[in-house]
Amino acid sequence: MKRRGLLLVVSGPSGAGKGTICKELLSRRGDSITVSVSATTRSPRAGEVEGVNYFFLDKEKFVDMVAAGEFLEHAQVYDNFYGTPMKFVMDELVRGKNVLLEIDIQGAMQVREKYPEGVYIFVLPPSMKELKNRIIGRGSETAESLEKRFSSAFSEIDFIKKYDYYIINDKVDKATDTLTSIIDAESHRVVENIEELINEFKGERE
Amino acid sequence: MKRRGLLLVVSGPSGAGKGTICKELLSRRGDSITVSVSATTRSPRAGEVEGVNYFFLDKEKFVDMVAAGEFLEHAQVYDNFYGTPMKFVMDELVRGKNVLLEIDIQGAMQVREKYPEGVYIFVLPPSMKELKNRIIGRGSETAESLEKRFSSAFSEIDFIKKYDYYIINDKVDKATDTLTSIIDAESHRVVENIEELINEFKGERE
Repeated sequence: MKRRGLLLVVSGPSGAGKGTICKELLSRRGDSITVSVSATTRSPRAGEVEGVNYFFLDKEKFVDMVAAGEFLEHAQVYDNFYGTPMKFVMDELVRGKNVLLEIDIQGAMQVREKYPEGVYIFVLPPSMKELKNRIIGRGSETAESLEKRFSSAFSEIDFIKKYDYYIINDKVDKATDTLTSIIDAESHRVVENIEELINEFKGERE
Repeated sequence: MKRRGLLLVVSGPSGAGKGTICKELLSRRGDSITVSVSATTRSPRAGEVEGVNYFFLDKEKFVDMVAAGEFLEHAQVYDNFYGTPMKFVMDELVRGKNVLLEIDIQGAMQVREKYPEGVYIFVLPPSMKELKNRIIGRGSETAESLEKRFSSAFSEIDFIKKYDYYIINDKVDKATDTLTSIIDAESHRVVENIEELINEFKGERE
């Protein structure tokens, strides 16, 4: 009897810094965490490796998998499809590995429908002002498109209530400490199969 | 708008070492944690201070408080009553302080009925064999009474499924790390009043 791994869904508005936190988490805990690999219909770029950066699929295969319910979530971005294949994630969880999925809010909401047992973590910027600065800092966009991105991030924050935990990304180190605390706590949560685990524990009584 | 503190209920069979873990927790985090003070009808012993070690009450007052539902839990041990006054705990929680309640399993189950929002943590011994050793090590009891205590601890373990988290007390330091992780994680849980908290956060947008 084994304890199933945790599906760690790290999400939040763009500019909150979820990528930075996940990178720091992996540098600390890479050994015990598997990063979920997405599937995409776009062509591999130079240096990208099948099964490491992405699973590269043709559109027909992708659409078949969508129809068969084989994605935890999927989305279309311009002409390409992206998705999280369920099998890869489930296999790792059953092996007892924790799986990290860094994903936008729409994706996270899809995952939650299929796997509510996951741990849903919402990353917030330190302040709305800082979020604006970060969005501006990212690229040479027009004032209008910046305002649009900011106001979209602003309303995305309401989705926080669909999550289990929130982390305010003020300092990356501290935010990552909180993330590791969440992982450690969740690893000690009383789970459905606790009775079987306890019976094994009691089995020592001889 | 303030975030309410956490009621941390640390419980488990006798011999599991919950007292040792709580002591270590307080030595690390004493500043941010209030220890719940029990009420009792027994007489103060030398050096015991009202409101610090216990609230000392006469039996009439105690019984009135039980009738008025003013205890989170209470129990009779021989001729004396013991209980956890609700007001003291609630006042601290509303102030945003975390409150630690180290308590046996029967008491924890009573608290849970009145305050299910608490964080219920079950401390397990490293093994059943070690639990036996610890119970034996505690005092000069008869073989029969030892066997009774052990078998009671053994069946108490089934109550684990009524808890949120479990900690295996193998090494005190590591067990306390897990407890602090649970506190940090729970402090970042998305709570009922998250919308109000977020509106304040958004309020920065000017």
